[in-house]
Amino acid sequence: MPNRTVFFVSDGTGITAETFGNSILAQFSSRHRHVRRPFIDTAEKSDQVIAEINGTAVVEGKRPIVFITLVNDTVRDRIASRCNALVMDMFRTFVEPIEAELGIKSNHRVGRFSDVAKSQEYHDRIEAINFSLAHDDGQSSRNLAEADVILVGVSRCGKTPTSLYLAMQHGIKAANYPLIPDDFERDALPSSLLPYKRKCFGLTIDADRLSQIRNERRPGSKYAALANCRYEINEAERLMKREGIHWLSSTHKSIEEIATTILSDIRPDRLIY
Amino acid sequence: MPNRTVFFVSDGTGITAETFGNSILAQFSSRHRHVRRPFIDTAEKSDQVIAEINGTAVVEGKRPIVFITLVNDTVRDRIASRCNALVMDMFRTFVEPIEAELGIKSNHRVGRFSDVAKSQEYHDRIEAINFSLAHDDGQSSRNLAEADVILVGVSRCGKTPTSLYLAMQHGIKAANYPLIPDDFERDALPSSLLPYKRKCFGLTIDADRLSQIRNERRPGSKYAALANCRYEINEAERLMKREGIHWLSSTHKSIEEIATTILSDIRPDRLIY
Repeated sequence: MPNRTVFFVSDGTGITAETFGNSILAQFSSRHRHVRRPFIDTAEKSDQVIAEINGTAVVEGKRPIVFITLVNDTVRDRIASRCNALVMDMFRTFVEPIEAELGIKSNHRVGRFSDVAKSQEYHDRIEAINFSLAHDDGQSSRNLAEADVILVGVSRCGKTPTSLYLAMQHGIKAANYPLIPDDFERDALPSSLLPYKRKCFGLTIDADRLSQIRNERRPGSKYAALANCRYEINEAERLMKREGIHWLSSTHKSIEEIATTILSDIRPDRLIY
Repeated sequence: MPNRTVFFVSDGTGITAETFGNSILAQFSSRHRHVRRPFIDTAEKSDQVIAEINGTAVVEGKRPIVFITLVNDTVRDRIASRCNALVMDMFRTFVEPIEAELGIKSNHRVGRFSDVAKSQEYHDRIEAINFSLAHDDGQSSRNLAEADVILVGVSRCGKTPTSLYLAMQHGIKAANYPLIPDDFERDALPSSLLPYKRKCFGLTIDADRLSQIRNERRPGSKYAALANCRYEINEAERLMKREGIHWLSSTHKSIEEIATTILSDIRPDRLIY
């Protein structure tokens, strides 16, 4: 049974409230029921949420934890004062000290994503997603000159989700290119990558884990066999080492961690987001 | 010239520090130079960062703003006490009150993503990305029964990035299917969608904006012409209305906002992340 109900209440999408709240809750081993309430931007909507929070406190016999990112003062004050809950107010706690530090007032804009659809950054991010999709799994060698990074590695080592994450979260044009048995037999990188070797970054993975992932796709195949996975991984690592391509292992890493490491390696301060 | 340098310092990937810090800084019209310092998990690394922060304060004549997500107490105390900066400590401010509320100690785990690669949630998220990729742009009608949502709408209205975002961020299996002139002539949804009508969610867009986006791809084409965009959008909206498919306009919305609205509509509490 979950220990406590946690609400994420925002007058925007609630993504910031939830991301931050989860990073805090990850510090605890207890499990919680999560309830998201985005777009709470009027007194009426806030009263509905307050009723829901207070009802939960009664039913569960424990007051909920409520993470709020509210820039609307009316909504914020209502929720902070009328909820039977531990209310964690991110904006008041952090925005006000920064106002004092900078000597300026905050805009009290609603949410980090307001008007973003019109911005150049957002446009670049959508373009990066399109680029990464068009250059997934070596589908196209066109315009590789435009890539910010080209991920290389054996099939199913995590290149695709990492490329899409880099594009979506950071606006990075991330192509990815598989290293396949043909390359190992020729003992050379795919020829279309040669002009862009310095943009390549390698992913590798433990053979056990790779075999497990490939078996979910093609059970019992040679492709998924442990011995074959070992062979491909050894060859790929040997090739990357010889060509001076940096790499990391995806075995125990999330795509977020992999992406951060790649970005530190290729260009620490060129992140858009 | 940027008003101030902002550091994001973490012993994990720094994604939480940056997401949260940006949501705070979005409240201000001033521009800042951003510096990311992830994986700061030893006293030695923290001393390098402290030197960098204090050096920046001297050079710029203004103390930096430093967002930290540090669970390592040694690193945290060093940075909090030795930096000439406004230090915003997210964990100390919020983790400690929750410890008191729950009556348990936090794990002091490093980062929200630790060990995540082994979790079922992470596995489901990667599966969702694979599903959404395989079902991008009506590529496949196989396994549509497994989809959590099927986005429909005219070409280039935002279906692809939204599907990938839903998969990556929320572990939602999001297929997407274009509505094309053939469908408008037949005056019916694509037949493969008919059994799944209640899972469909529509995206629409202003004709001006669509024409602009399509012209970037295929300049001067009939496909991109304003009159054609108007025709397609009208037909698509008429079709969705008749079939009882909810929709929203992507014109002024980011993919984050679109995704949040879709999730509220289809299943408010089934988000994984």
